Amino acid sequence: MKNTTLCYIEQNGAYLMLHRTKKHQDPNQGKWIGVGGKFEEGESPDDCLLREVQEETGLSLTRWRCRGIVTFVSDEWPTEYMHLFTADGFTGSLTQCDEGELAWVSKGDVPALNLWAGDRVFLRLLAQDAPFFLLKLIYRGDALTEAVLNGQALAL
Amino acid sequence: MKNTTLCYIEQNGAYLMLHRTKKHQDPNQGKWIGVGGKFEEGESPDDCLLREVQEETGLSLTRWRCRGIVTFVSDEWPTEYMHLFTADGFTGSLTQCDEGELAWVSKGDVPALNLWAGDRVFLRLLAQDAPFFLLKLIYRGDALTEAVLNGQALAL
Repeated sequence: MKNTTLCYIEQNGAYLMLHRTKKHQDPNQGKWIGVGGKFEEGESPDDCLLREVQEETGLSLTRWRCRGIVTFVSDEWPTEYMHLFTADGFTGSLTQCDEGELAWVSKGDVPALNLWAGDRVFLRLLAQDAPFFLLKLIYRGDALTEAVLNGQALAL
Repeated sequence: MKNTTLCYIEQNGAYLMLHRTKKHQDPNQGKWIGVGGKFEEGESPDDCLLREVQEETGLSLTRWRCRGIVTFVSDEWPTEYMHLFTADGFTGSLTQCDEGELAWVSKGDVPALNLWAGDRVFLRLLAQDAPFFLLKLIYRGDALTEAVLNGQALAL
């Protein structure tokens, strides 16, 4: 079991996306995701958010919102509880990221990227400005086999 | 590190409170809390909520809301991420609970109970109908030494 954060930083109608191209044996290899990472000992979800965003982008967040918790269950990895954030205020300038290439991508262009199927589900919820949600995503290998939103199964 | 749920079930202006009197070596001994418990493997926060409420009260929740995540950091216990819920819809009838005595307590009478100091903080947020929050509570032994709400330190 692990707890993580993922953040989509917004500016001028674009999200800061991370193209995962640099980590060795990265389960996210080639995928576009937000920025974030694992909780360290004693960190709250927002402690982890601020540290990971700083480490991966050089930016210091000044305004953020926790949008939901995504429970990933997989036949290959331990269960992950991902705390999903968006942020629309920050200071500082973008730096290089050790884990891939950072790029501002217009929200309308995000669906054309190489994304996990489950990420499309929660990106849609963000676009709809859904209230805080609990989303469970079940994967078999790389295939999304089940999605449950606030206790209700979604059609895939 | 552990992930847990805690739920305050509401009916007619009262919360269903659990007086922890039965468990051996219970850190909550003598305290009044809500119902809930630890995530089991592969459970989402709401999976855990429904199971724990059923096990501890006999009730099946039909309507609930995740109100916040409370990060407990202590010099005595592992860090706990408690997913705080309220629920105002359920079916079934109350059963005995293995962990203590269940009682409906008028919300106005709850502050007079033997409560953890930090629980008073989040019960106040529930009473104020605060939007989804991230609350970090730091304990030294039984004493609350720091409370941080959405990144801002609270006066104690």
